[in-house]
Amino acid sequence: YGKNTIKFLRLHKEGKKHFVKEVEVCAHLRLTSPQEYLEGNNSLVIPTDTIKNIVLVLAKKNGIPSLEQFAIDICNHFMTTFCQVAYVKTYVQEVPWQRLHEDGVPHIHSFICVPDGIRFCEAEQCRNGPLIVFAGIKDLKLMKTTQSGFEGFYKNEHTTLPERHDRILCGELFCKWSYGECKNFDFDCIWKKIRECILEAFAGPPDCGEYSPSYQKTVNCIQMLVLSRVSQVQVIEVVLNNTFYNVVDMKNLGLTNDKEVLVPVEAPYGSCACTLGRK
Amino acid sequence: YGKNTIKFLRLHKEGKKHFVKEVEVCAHLRLTSPQEYLEGNNSLVIPTDTIKNIVLVLAKKNGIPSLEQFAIDICNHFMTTFCQVAYVKTYVQEVPWQRLHEDGVPHIHSFICVPDGIRFCEAEQCRNGPLIVFAGIKDLKLMKTTQSGFEGFYKNEHTTLPERHDRILCGELFCKWSYGECKNFDFDCIWKKIRECILEAFAGPPDCGEYSPSYQKTVNCIQMLVLSRVSQVQVIEVVLNNTFYNVVDMKNLGLTNDKEVLVPVEAPYGSCACTLGRK
Amino acid sequence: YGKNTIKFLRLHKEGKKHFVKEVEVCAHLRLTSPQEYLEGNNSLVIPTDTIKNIVLVLAKKNGIPSLEQFAIDICNHFMTTFCQVAYVKTYVQEVPWQRLHEDGVPHIHSFICVPDGIRFCEAEQCRNGPLIVFAGIKDLKLMKTTQSGFEGFYKNEHTTLPERHDRILCGELFCKWSYGECKNFDFDCIWKKIRECILEAFAGPPDCGEYSPSYQKTVNCIQMLVLSRVSQVQVIEVVLNNTFYNVVDMKNLGLTNDKEVLVPVEAPYGSCACTLGRK
Amino acid sequence: YGKNTIKFLRLHKEGKKHFVKEVEVCAHLRLTSPQEYLEGNNSLVIPTDTIKNIVLVLAKKNGIPSLEQFAIDICNHFMTTFCQVAYVKTYVQEVPWQRLHEDGVPHIHSFICVPDGIRFCEAEQCRNGPLIVFAGIKDLKLMKTTQSGFEGFYKNEHTTLPERHDRILCGELFCKWSYGECKNFDFDCIWKKIRECILEAFAGPPDCGEYSPSYQKTVNCIQMLVLSRVSQVQVIEVVLNNTFYNVVDMKNLGLTNDKEVLVPVEAPYGSCACTLGRK
Repeated sequence: YGKNTIKFLRLHKEGKKHFVKEVEVCAHLRLTSPQEYLEGNNSLVIPTDTIKNIVLVLAKKNGIPSLEQFAIDICNHFMTTFCQVAYVKTYVQEVPWQRLHEDGVPHIHSFICVPDGIRFCEAEQCRNGPLIVFAGIKDLKLMKTTQSGFEGFYKNEHTTLPERHDRILCGELFCKWSYGECKNFDFDCIWKKIRECILEAFAGPPDCGEYSPSYQKTVNCIQMLVLSRVSQVQVIEVVLNNTFYNVVDMKNLGLTNDKEVLVPVEAPYGSCACTLGRK
Repeated sequence: YGKNTIKFLRLHKEGKKHFVKEVEVCAHLRLTSPQEYLEGNNSLVIPTDTIKNIVLVLAKKNGIPSLEQFAIDICNHFMTTFCQVAYVKTYVQEVPWQRLHEDGVPHIHSFICVPDGIRFCEAEQCRNGPLIVFAGIKDLKLMKTTQSGFEGFYKNEHTTLPERHDRILCGELFCKWSYGECKNFDFDCIWKKIRECILEAFAGPPDCGEYSPSYQKTVNCIQMLVLSRVSQVQVIEVVLNNTFYNVVDMKNLGLTNDKEVLVPVEAPYGSCACTLGRK
Repeated sequence: YGKNTIKFLRLHKEGKKHFVKEVEVCAHLRLTSPQEYLEGNNSLVIPTDTIKNIVLVLAKKNGIPSLEQFAIDICNHFMTTFCQVAYVKTYVQEVPWQRLHEDGVPHIHSFICVPDGIRFCEAEQCRNGPLIVFAGIKDLKLMKTTQSGFEGFYKNEHTTLPERHDRILCGELFCKWSYGECKNFDFDCIWKKIRECILEAFAGPPDCGEYSPSYQKTVNCIQMLVLSRVSQVQVIEVVLNNTFYNVVDMKNLGLTNDKEVLVPVEAPYGSCACTLGRK
Repeated sequence: YGKNTIKFLRLHKEGKKHFVKEVEVCAHLRLTSPQEYLEGNNSLVIPTDTIKNIVLVLAKKNGIPSLEQFAIDICNHFMTTFCQVAYVKTYVQEVPWQRLHEDGVPHIHSFICVPDGIRFCEAEQCRNGPLIVFAGIKDLKLMKTTQSGFEGFYKNEHTTLPERHDRILCGELFCKWSYGECKNFDFDCIWKKIRECILEAFAGPPDCGEYSPSYQKTVNCIQMLVLSRVSQVQVIEVVLNNTFYNVVDMKNLGLTNDKEVLVPVEAPYGSCACTLGRK
């Protein structure tokens, strides 16, 4: 198969107000015949340069109503235009530009980049198969300074980790879900709702939080909340890359450190992942 | 000289509410004698490990009231404790954790990382000299989709750039200012005010913006506004790393592209910088 | 499942001569029961910290005879020690330290890092299934300045790429192969042989090279040569991330540029990949 | 001032043999008047795009006989062509392509990237001042597995580091030297000679090495050897970014670890730097 990455900006105006989307699009194609590989016969090959042109032309003609709709448009174009395409997958990722505000007033043409979780989506289709849409959020860094522990784990002669009932829970979250076959969803609205579910399940109630007995359980809570609140989600995958923090031992410096000063532990670096679907 | 980087977390509680600062501290020391280099005589050398311990102990004892105060505390400690230190510089950078909110309600112990401009500061001192404090913001990505041009520049036989009166202005901003000799400023408050000045000078009025004839002029506008509004600032340096965007030529694809689809130009990649002080 | 990364150095001496291996090990485990996720029951969970200890203890006891043997040792340990493990995968990657030479004389204890292609391997096993070993090379950057073209490709109204019969072929190669079920191979020797095959197939004969009609065909040539020369390889995957170079058009600068000055094209950035096995 | 980065490839042929240089050029200009900043008057501004064209045209016309000569050519061009330029600095860095060899036979047009120390240079000039040339090597990673210690350092109540007489010495080296005013040196030959001096001073004799009492002393040995062997060098700066390795304590795992298994210590991360000139 072949793969491309194209980055571009799509502007549009409503009156004097400007709107901007900057996206990175990655298109994977697999052809029906491997002759390009085996024989060096290029007659069916769609050059990277042509793929770039198609993506830019579609952006020009249709705009980017939502990341998901744009990914669907690209898939449809390749499937209907090129009979030599056996499979197409489109990945679209957004640069998180947000409108600037001055004293609460939105600016008509100025933006700031706020990367607190990157939105992305995928659309994929095999010839004669359904078009399936995924969406997700990545690089979302979260921390709980309490209400997290890790106890009762399996122990043997290689175990040196002490049990802890009040540790820091910190990690980078990746979350991807599928919508099943594509319908006319309000993708922007659903995405925002899922982001809120993730934050709520991670943090618990604002006034007291909720105890997490492990990274794994927190991953599961996020999945359960999304599945219960957002009916359009069929399957949800969550990966949590953990950053561990150790309370610095200050005894030999003559001090007691009551979880006030902690250092990140670079190694071992762990992650836990789980994929959960509906019955 | 020697240099160290130490990353750690400082927690404190007020009632049930948690506060967190994660910082990266970098300490440079220069000793009065170069004997460690020339003779391999280590008797005056303060090991990296000791420097780390000192930084962590100061964080434990004093907390981090502000980045600047913490940098000052470290400088003072080294100057007063070690007579072999001829010069000390401390750089402190903050991981941009922000308190999570659920439906507008602040969470008591959960945080999200929002890197829309990184706050940092520096304190430096030569023995018998004044302690000087700098502060700044870096990795602040901004974009204006109009009200920017570049015309009337110098031309000769190597010039191929066309004049433009409606281009994208996009860049990553670095800004660093000095407070002169250290006083008891409200560093947090001043920092926020300067950040607002930067955004205002970059963007112009929310309803119409302000025309920028060049990156250089925008850099100067930012400096002038900060100097006029914030009396504590003595000298201000601004570096703007430009990202250029080209309107995609779609003529050979049979389309007119009225600044709707643009691609970033990776090379040449430019930056402009200026340092401005008070008379 | 859970995943860990551990980086460490393994030294050993033969007489006064030192040998060093620095590796990054990543272990994935899947347990037979998802109770840790669903119920927050940690009783079967093997903590990251324990996994780290096991990897370090195995390195201490057995050394790292080859990356592959070390990966196999880790897999075996987890499968035989923990009945709750349903699946284990171990990835091992080497930091490319090479012995220093002075005037051709090897140094007994000094090394230089030479990252001209990173060696890695994987071993994986499901309970009651065979242990399968993979090996590979990544981050191998290669360039041919001629004997490469791209012609006769599919064209339609979105095609703007001209045909070229003398372009630069430049890319970063990833190559991974499987040995099938594990036998007592001389993994170091085979790895070196495969690396040579890759370079030979990429470059062609030293005195004239060999024409490449596409990145795809070059990928296939590499695979075919490895499969024909190295009988232990069962399946081989090659991914070539292309860097395109454009001859700079200097007509409007009054110069003819006969493929003397070229600039890398950042976008579109392409890659092609193929997996090939034996019949 | 303004700054640009331009990356390009320069090819040339001698008979059927191809030669390639890929470089990254960075040009800083400061103009005699700040009117571009203060007044938004662009009439003296040399656009980034023009600078790029000049660099490419010089590469086309003169080739890149050596990095240093190319940097000098660029400086000279700007100083003689543009009377509004008050200061110019040119930085040139090389992508480390090496000719491929098959069974010892050099390939006529195939290359591999071998980043074991990156070569760079700088040329700078103020109007009416001398043109000064610097050269250097960076990203050179070296390790000694023995013959290194750190003892007799300053101790107080914050000291926790034990003395060590047999530790790992590992670091990333940056080295930059000045040639004083530019003469017709054989820059390629001198650069290779200095690289050899660095390796020799770092490692010591191949059969036994030489004891290093500190990173600082090793930095000084490198400087002294270069100054004594290479008369063209006026001043030499060396920065060594240290990576510390700790012997893993395996007592609670029931094992003795005789400096066989070590882990890198991510924090504190130190560096030491020194600049040394001739009397």
